[in-house]
Amino acid sequence: MTLINNIFVTGAAGFVGSNLVDRLLQKSLTVTGYDNFSTGFEKNLEQAGKDPNFTMIRGDTLDLPNLTEAMNGCNFVFHMAANADVRFGTQHPGKDLEQNTIATFNVLEAMRANELTNIAFPSTGSVYGEPAVFPTPENVSFPIQTSLYGASKLAGEGLIEAYCEGYGFQAWIFRFVSIMGERYSHGHVLDFYKKLMADPGHLHVLGNGKQRKSYLYVQDCIDAMFVAIEKAQDKVNIFNLGTDEYICVDDSIRWITDYLKLNPRIIYSGSDRGWIGDNPFIFLDCMSLRALGWEPKVTIRDAVINTLQYLEHNK
Amino acid sequence: MTLINNIFVTGAAGFVGSNLVDRLLQKSLTVTGYDNFSTGFEKNLEQAGKDPNFTMIRGDTLDLPNLTEAMNGCNFVFHMAANADVRFGTQHPGKDLEQNTIATFNVLEAMRANELTNIAFPSTGSVYGEPAVFPTPENVSFPIQTSLYGASKLAGEGLIEAYCEGYGFQAWIFRFVSIMGERYSHGHVLDFYKKLMADPGHLHVLGNGKQRKSYLYVQDCIDAMFVAIEKAQDKVNIFNLGTDEYICVDDSIRWITDYLKLNPRIIYSGSDRGWIGDNPFIFLDCMSLRALGWEPKVTIRDAVINTLQYLEHNK
Repeated sequence: MTLINNIFVTGAAGFVGSNLVDRLLQKSLTVTGYDNFSTGFEKNLEQAGKDPNFTMIRGDTLDLPNLTEAMNGCNFVFHMAANADVRFGTQHPGKDLEQNTIATFNVLEAMRANELTNIAFPSTGSVYGEPAVFPTPENVSFPIQTSLYGASKLAGEGLIEAYCEGYGFQAWIFRFVSIMGERYSHGHVLDFYKKLMADPGHLHVLGNGKQRKSYLYVQDCIDAMFVAIEKAQDKVNIFNLGTDEYICVDDSIRWITDYLKLNPRIIYSGSDRGWIGDNPFIFLDCMSLRALGWEPKVTIRDAVINTLQYLEHNK
Repeated sequence: MTLINNIFVTGAAGFVGSNLVDRLLQKSLTVTGYDNFSTGFEKNLEQAGKDPNFTMIRGDTLDLPNLTEAMNGCNFVFHMAANADVRFGTQHPGKDLEQNTIATFNVLEAMRANELTNIAFPSTGSVYGEPAVFPTPENVSFPIQTSLYGASKLAGEGLIEAYCEGYGFQAWIFRFVSIMGERYSHGHVLDFYKKLMADPGHLHVLGNGKQRKSYLYVQDCIDAMFVAIEKAQDKVNIFNLGTDEYICVDDSIRWITDYLKLNPRIIYSGSDRGWIGDNPFIFLDCMSLRALGWEPKVTIRDAVINTLQYLEHNK
C-alpha cells in the first residue's frame, strides 16, 4: 500500500469501517471518512477524531454530488457502507437494492468523476446462496441467490467488475463470513446477549441450533484486506475471507451462557433455517488469501468472547 | 401453460417482446402489453392490435404505480423490457442499472403488490463474462462480469432468485445468445446492412472478424421459452438459450455480402474485441433445454438471411 496516501472510507462510523479507519491511521495514512450515521456511531470514531490525518464528512452514499465532492483528492476507496443485515431483507426489499447496489454504483461514479480507479469492496459469502461444495471456493459453480442481501452484494460485485473492464479500475472484492469483535453492532451474539440481559432464564433461538456458520474476528479481517491489496495485482481480485473452522449455533450459545454464567432454558423455533434466506451452512475456502501469507490469529470462540467483552463494556 | 390465461408482457413493442405477444395471441391467450416505446415500435404491434384478446398500455417500467396498476388481473409476467444493447454501456453507465436492474426490481414489486408469483426473464450469455469452458453450461464457475449490460442482467437474475426464496415466486430465467429475425432492431446485421446501404464499396468492421458468436432465431427462442415454462417446475429454472453452433464475424459478413450481391472492401478495426466488454467467444451449452424436447429449427445462417429479408422489406 506504499502508493496509497489518501484513503476514502465509506461507512467509516460503522463496525468494520471504523476499525479499518483506526488501522489506516495507525499506518500514518491520511483518511477521509464518509458516513450518514444511519447505523454508524460517533463514538466509534472517538479515537480517529483525535488524529490530524483524519477528516470526517457526514453524507449519504445515495447523494452523488456530495459523495463526489467528498472524494476529491483521495486515491483509494474502501466502500464499507452497506445495509449489512441479511435477516430483514424481505421486510423492506428496496433497502438492499438502494443501500448496496445503487450506493455502490454511486461510489463508482464518484470515483470516475474524480479519476480514482482503486476500490476495495466487502461482499459476502451469502452470494454463494446454498452451495453444494464445502468449504466453498471463490470459483464454485454459478450460484443462485437466496437473499436480497446476497443479491444486492452480487450486483455490487458485478458493477465493480464491469468498471474494471470498462474504465480501467482495479478492485479487491472480499466475500466475508460474519465478522465479530469490538464495535459489533448486529448479529446473533448481540441478539442473544440482549435477550439474556432482559430474561436470563430463557433464550429463544431462531432455527434449531444446528445451523453451521463461520465467523472472523474484525482485526483478522482487516489484516486480510491489507495483505490482499498489497500482494494481489490482478484487474479483479476476489477473495473469500473467513477462518478454517465453522461452529454450530449451539456452540456459540454454550460459550455465551458460560461466559455470562447463565443457564437459561433454550427454546428453538425449530427449522434448520433461522429466517427466510438463512443459510444453514456457511464455510468458505480461504486458501487463496492464505496463499498470500495471511492467516487468522483469533479462533471463532475467542472472537465470540471478545465480542461479549465489548458488549459488556458498551451497554 | 394451461393454467396461464392473462399474460403481462413488458417490452411488448420490442423485437422479441412483440414476436412473443403474437405467439401468445395465437394460443388464444389474453395478453396485456406494456411498453414506453423508447426503443419499441407501434408497427411491431399492428397484428396484435387487431386481436380482441390484446390490451396495450403505454408506460415505463420505472413508473412503479403505473406498472402496478397495469399488471392488475394478470397471472404471468414475461419481463422482456430492457436496454438490450451491450455495446454502448460505458457511454452511459446508469442506463443498464436503471433499465435492467431497477426496472426488474419494479416488475417484481408490482407483481408482489398484485400477488403474482410467476415470471419469465430474458437474461444473457454475457453474464458469463469470458468463461474458460465452451460450450458454456449454466453451472460453470462463478463468473466475473465484463460489461455493464451483463452486470445489470446478473443483478436482475439475483433479484428474481431472491424473490423466489423470499416471497414464493417461481421463475424461468433464460440466458440468451443474440437473437435474430423479424423486427430485429440492433446488432451487427443491422449495423452492416446500414453501412453497406450507405457505402456498398466498403465495410468497416469492429474487431478483426474472428470473434466467434452464437445466435438464435427469434421463433426458436420463443418456442424454447414455452417448452421450459411448461416442463420445468423448479422454484428457479435457469436455461441457456442458443444453437449448437457458432460462427465467426467473417462468416456473417460473407453471408450478408453474398445475399446483397456486394463485394465491399473489408476494413477491420483490428483487435480481437469489437468494443470494450465485447466477448471474443460466445457459445452456450443448451443441453438442459434440449433435454426437455426443444430444438432450434433454424440455422444461424438462415437466421441471418431471415433478418436481412426483414430489413430489406422494412427500411
